[in-house]
Amino acid sequence: MKKIVLLFSTVLFIGGNLFAQKNDSLVIRNFSDDILVNGKAYENLRYLCKKIGARLSGSANAQKAVEATARMLKEAGADTVYLQPCMVPHWVRGEKEQAIIQTGNTKRALKVCALGMSVGTPAAGIKASIIEVKNYDELKSLGAEKVKGKIVFFNYAMRPELVEGGYGDAVKYRTSGPVEAAKLGAVGVMIRSVTHALDYNPHTGTTRYNDSVKKIPAIACSTMDAEWLQALLQKEKNVQFFMKMNCRQLPDVQSYNVIGEIKGSEKPAEIITMGGHLDSWDLAEGAHDDGTGIVQAIEALRAIKASGIQPKRTIRAVMFMNEENGLRGGHAYADFAASHNEHHIFAIESDEGGFGVKSLGIGGTPAQQEKLRSWLPLFTPYGIYGMPADGGGADIGPLRVLGTVMSSINPESQRYFDLHHAPNDVFEAVNKRELELGAVAMTAIVYLVSEYGL
Amino acid sequence: MKKIVLLFSTVLFIGGNLFAQKNDSLVIRNFSDDILVNGKAYENLRYLCKKIGARLSGSANAQKAVEATARMLKEAGADTVYLQPCMVPHWVRGEKEQAIIQTGNTKRALKVCALGMSVGTPAAGIKASIIEVKNYDELKSLGAEKVKGKIVFFNYAMRPELVEGGYGDAVKYRTSGPVEAAKLGAVGVMIRSVTHALDYNPHTGTTRYNDSVKKIPAIACSTMDAEWLQALLQKEKNVQFFMKMNCRQLPDVQSYNVIGEIKGSEKPAEIITMGGHLDSWDLAEGAHDDGTGIVQAIEALRAIKASGIQPKRTIRAVMFMNEENGLRGGHAYADFAASHNEHHIFAIESDEGGFGVKSLGIGGTPAQQEKLRSWLPLFTPYGIYGMPADGGGADIGPLRVLGTVMSSINPESQRYFDLHHAPNDVFEAVNKRELELGAVAMTAIVYLVSEYGL
Repeated sequence: MKKIVLLFSTVLFIGGNLFAQKNDSLVIRNFSDDILVNGKAYENLRYLCKKIGARLSGSANAQKAVEATARMLKEAGADTVYLQPCMVPHWVRGEKEQAIIQTGNTKRALKVCALGMSVGTPAAGIKASIIEVKNYDELKSLGAEKVKGKIVFFNYAMRPELVEGGYGDAVKYRTSGPVEAAKLGAVGVMIRSVTHALDYNPHTGTTRYNDSVKKIPAIACSTMDAEWLQALLQKEKNVQFFMKMNCRQLPDVQSYNVIGEIKGSEKPAEIITMGGHLDSWDLAEGAHDDGTGIVQAIEALRAIKASGIQPKRTIRAVMFMNEENGLRGGHAYADFAASHNEHHIFAIESDEGGFGVKSLGIGGTPAQQEKLRSWLPLFTPYGIYGMPADGGGADIGPLRVLGTVMSSINPESQRYFDLHHAPNDVFEAVNKRELELGAVAMTAIVYLVSEYGL
Repeated sequence: MKKIVLLFSTVLFIGGNLFAQKNDSLVIRNFSDDILVNGKAYENLRYLCKKIGARLSGSANAQKAVEATARMLKEAGADTVYLQPCMVPHWVRGEKEQAIIQTGNTKRALKVCALGMSVGTPAAGIKASIIEVKNYDELKSLGAEKVKGKIVFFNYAMRPELVEGGYGDAVKYRTSGPVEAAKLGAVGVMIRSVTHALDYNPHTGTTRYNDSVKKIPAIACSTMDAEWLQALLQKEKNVQFFMKMNCRQLPDVQSYNVIGEIKGSEKPAEIITMGGHLDSWDLAEGAHDDGTGIVQAIEALRAIKASGIQPKRTIRAVMFMNEENGLRGGHAYADFAASHNEHHIFAIESDEGGFGVKSLGIGGTPAQQEKLRSWLPLFTPYGIYGMPADGGGADIGPLRVLGTVMSSINPESQRYFDLHHAPNDVFEAVNKRELELGAVAMTAIVYLVSEYGL
């Protein structure tokens, strides 16, 4: 008799689950129809990119973006919209950099940009012999004797055979190249831009100093210039490099995360966070990095409100400030959560570009992952077939210590580093429907977690 | 005892399967490394797009593409390369079309192109009142009385809420609009281009006549012009339309499928086909449609040869001719297969653009699909998480009656119809690594089928 009862309840459970999934699939279809037909994500992105533009932390534009997205969240129907304060670094590029290669009397200007957070050169610039290394092993084998007084050119190309990990592999020369070179007495650093693309766009991005090592100026050149210089250095011995950079660090500035919230109807204390980062580098419009994540989170909030569904748990769309050069917003958000004993059950970030979504990254315990994956059939009509265990994002990362389940929108990634931190990261590089379908995915997963918990 | 033996053999089987998958994963990694580091797909595509360009069936360029891809297949290491004859239609656009909207004395030229296979207008063009309909229902409700002598403007916008089916839903006005309008006495047809994009690119594509209905000329206008004209027709009653089209149908031309083959070492009679179509429309470079499919198939053959693996079954890379306006190549291939009792076990086509691959479409019996899906873990390192049961392609379609299992490379599809059959379908719209990873997917699935059969 026990066995029969068990069977019966199993059937009921499966039946209930099927019914729920059918209903959820209709709810998600409704979100999708609304976003694809009436969506505001694309126009909001146009505003961020074209009316505001670059939004580096501490800049006037970053503040404009705070105000604009607060307005967008209100228009999207958030129950409450508020600003969460954080102090942010204020690095400025100053007048456009110069970089000139000189061999004998022949000079050639390179397409360059200062690395973010770099110190500037003296006002007159610096001039020194340039020495190429492919990697840290080559640098170390040269030793202080050959590096001292020189400008080190880290010419490490992103490894093409790495399907996805090429950026993580190559970026160490940008983040710590200046420290490693300065340890051996170098006076400046130039890195090959971290991108697979062969073009004339220099890519910026943060570099990090170590207070116990002299801070030397660091610049990135375009990959085409790197290829040219590599060929030159193979035939010429005494190549001089002049670099002039006007960047500097100003005092920290008051800034904000922007938060729009829908209060949960049944379990308001359980909080779900969805977001991206509001700041961008200063060279472009920050379209894919990360305007798209911002407008997708606003759109998800709008679609949930527009559906008339009152979510059971609290949902927040968070525009994090200062991901690029400090992560102050991400830390402020998690610090507030910890100090106020907030219960953050789930956080999802979209910060890998607004391209077509391939999968949803997920985290959590095996049981939580199993629950999340049980919803995968609801995503296949939108071209999402996988939920790999790689959920997370820089801004939501600090929540991890609170036990929050981490998730991410994982888009097609191959085009991303062609424009990442570079002047071609513009509105025109975003496809309206790819962007919108990312918002659909975000809306759907947040809705499901709100409905069923984790 | 029987039970124990069974268990034991199950363990052995699972162990063997795991061992095979591990080995296969290394083989596929080797393909991937080779394609991403040494691949020829991108440069072959550049040649097809930039050195040859548009390759409409029957044109001199189509013949150049036959010769060029035969050469590429030889360079890729095919055991044999041969041409399979087929007669193809030879439609020519002639001098650029003209389309002018006139209201009173105000004239405006529209961005238009003749639909493929359309008849031309008389040499002096035609001029008539233009009448807008949104769909066939509206056309029918107008009836012959209101349609007779007019030019019908089918202004059906691709439905944004359809995640993937928008093209299939909208294209009927292009394929059969002229017949339906002519039945009611219309003298010409203009359709809104079949694309989600709002821009000034007109999109061509085949239209089909019915010998029992008068053949009237048919043209497509850009979506921006369609929006403009829609607004105009709401306020103006007597709007005249002048269209002049110089296209015509010439006698059929001898052409070819291009086939490169690797002979199977163990079961040479079992044939695996991989390919795309070599012809393109005449307005652009046919980069995504379907230069990418062509160079992916050549690349897959190259990578298999370069690996040193002798495939167990016969593998053919087939460049099909005349997909766009006749499918003569696809039929010739299947007809030859049927008449020569060839045993085609599997065919895969890449003809949905060279964008990042989201899934592999598969077909076959439930058991065959299960076997194919057992290989899915081998594809996830390349970002492919799904094998939906939607395999197939126009060119390989005629093989279906022979029991061939149908498969397709399913890329991210949202950007495809922005450039499909339009002047912006150019080499620059293709991302090198997305293209190459499509070739990796094709190589891997073809290798697995060759190794293990179906």
